[in-house]
Amino acid sequence: MSQDGVLMTPKMEQRRQKRREMVSVRSDKRYTEILRAGARVFREQGYANTSLLDVAEAVGISRSTLYYYIGTKEDLLAEILEAPLVDMTRGMQALAALDLPAAERLRQAILLQMRAFEEYFPEMFVFLAERLHIGRRTTVIRSNAREYGEALVGIIEAGQRTGEFRRDLDPQVAMLGILGMANWTHRWYQPAGRLTLTQIGEQFAAMILQGLVEDADGR
Amino acid sequence: MSQDGVLMTPKMEQRRQKRREMVSVRSDKRYTEILRAGARVFREQGYANTSLLDVAEAVGISRSTLYYYIGTKEDLLAEILEAPLVDMTRGMQALAALDLPAAERLRQAILLQMRAFEEYFPEMFVFLAERLHIGRRTTVIRSNAREYGEALVGIIEAGQRTGEFRRDLDPQVAMLGILGMANWTHRWYQPAGRLTLTQIGEQFAAMILQGLVEDADGR
Repeated sequence: MSQDGVLMTPKMEQRRQKRREMVSVRSDKRYTEILRAGARVFREQGYANTSLLDVAEAVGISRSTLYYYIGTKEDLLAEILEAPLVDMTRGMQALAALDLPAAERLRQAILLQMRAFEEYFPEMFVFLAERLHIGRRTTVIRSNAREYGEALVGIIEAGQRTGEFRRDLDPQVAMLGILGMANWTHRWYQPAGRLTLTQIGEQFAAMILQGLVEDADGR
Repeated sequence: MSQDGVLMTPKMEQRRQKRREMVSVRSDKRYTEILRAGARVFREQGYANTSLLDVAEAVGISRSTLYYYIGTKEDLLAEILEAPLVDMTRGMQALAALDLPAAERLRQAILLQMRAFEEYFPEMFVFLAERLHIGRRTTVIRSNAREYGEALVGIIEAGQRTGEFRRDLDPQVAMLGILGMANWTHRWYQPAGRLTLTQIGEQFAAMILQGLVEDADGR
């Protein structure tokens, strides 16, 4: 039983899995249309108030045609965000490889994340709230999240190696702290508030960097 | 309809509200027993796998007697944590008032929170995951959360006033960043991991403080 109340036998699920694994589905023009319409409907109606039927209607296809492409509403959101999430990780990896001081790379890393939240508002926040990075059946999003964290840890470790960052902090804990600070904005950020997400990111970067950059006196 | 599937008419709900408002319910020995049994059953079975019926059985009372005291499973968790959450805020307010450097008060503030997570593990994390600080009908938990944040901001502002902390950071954003860093541990902390929550808190405090304490050279 999918979340939308459509009975799905293991065999049907298997058949869809197989179809979806074929490159053709993702290169299908209709698949792209569905993702675009889904993003629009989620923004207009809110994720909680949207059903897959609404999305099918927006595309102008039947419910059963939609189910050929997408299994559940959660899947749809995850697939809408898959490309942006993969882009974030590529951006992070590119940043990590730049020939810049570690502090500057880390600052840009924090801004990269906050700008993505801004660009894909509110979908990225719904994604975090719904824990879709944990529950996904496909491994793409999970492995992408792991690589993202690894690139961020890489910047911290590089800064520690060169002596730019203090060495008494655990790079993994520092990375998770930075991610937590950024990700928690999904609980409190108000688009009508005083500061944009990018401005909040600048503040976070300043706070974090003063914590990681080793001072001249070695404190 | 309560989440446990018991029909609750507005009149029944009203009557229960009224009874619960009487001081007698909370000073009732059975109420205390229910909270204690609830905490134990949540820990043993996991919050998601527990129903109010399990709690009634653990106390040795009927389901309907339990409903006299508690409306939903969410309410039970919130009421279990109400006293610890109020204690956290009182602790934070006491800390804020101490005659110590702001940096030391902020370090202790971060540790206070992480120790509470440790002491009430995993209930505090379930509470954060379920967003019970937002959805509560009673205002106690919400106003308590607000006061907690205010006390934390107070420490940051005091440090900025005395020149101990840099002044280019927004105290509200800094506070939310610190809370985010701490609260996000509910998504990644593993009790079997390398570090305890208190040790993670020490790392966070070190990272944050180096970011807030103004250096001698004014950087």
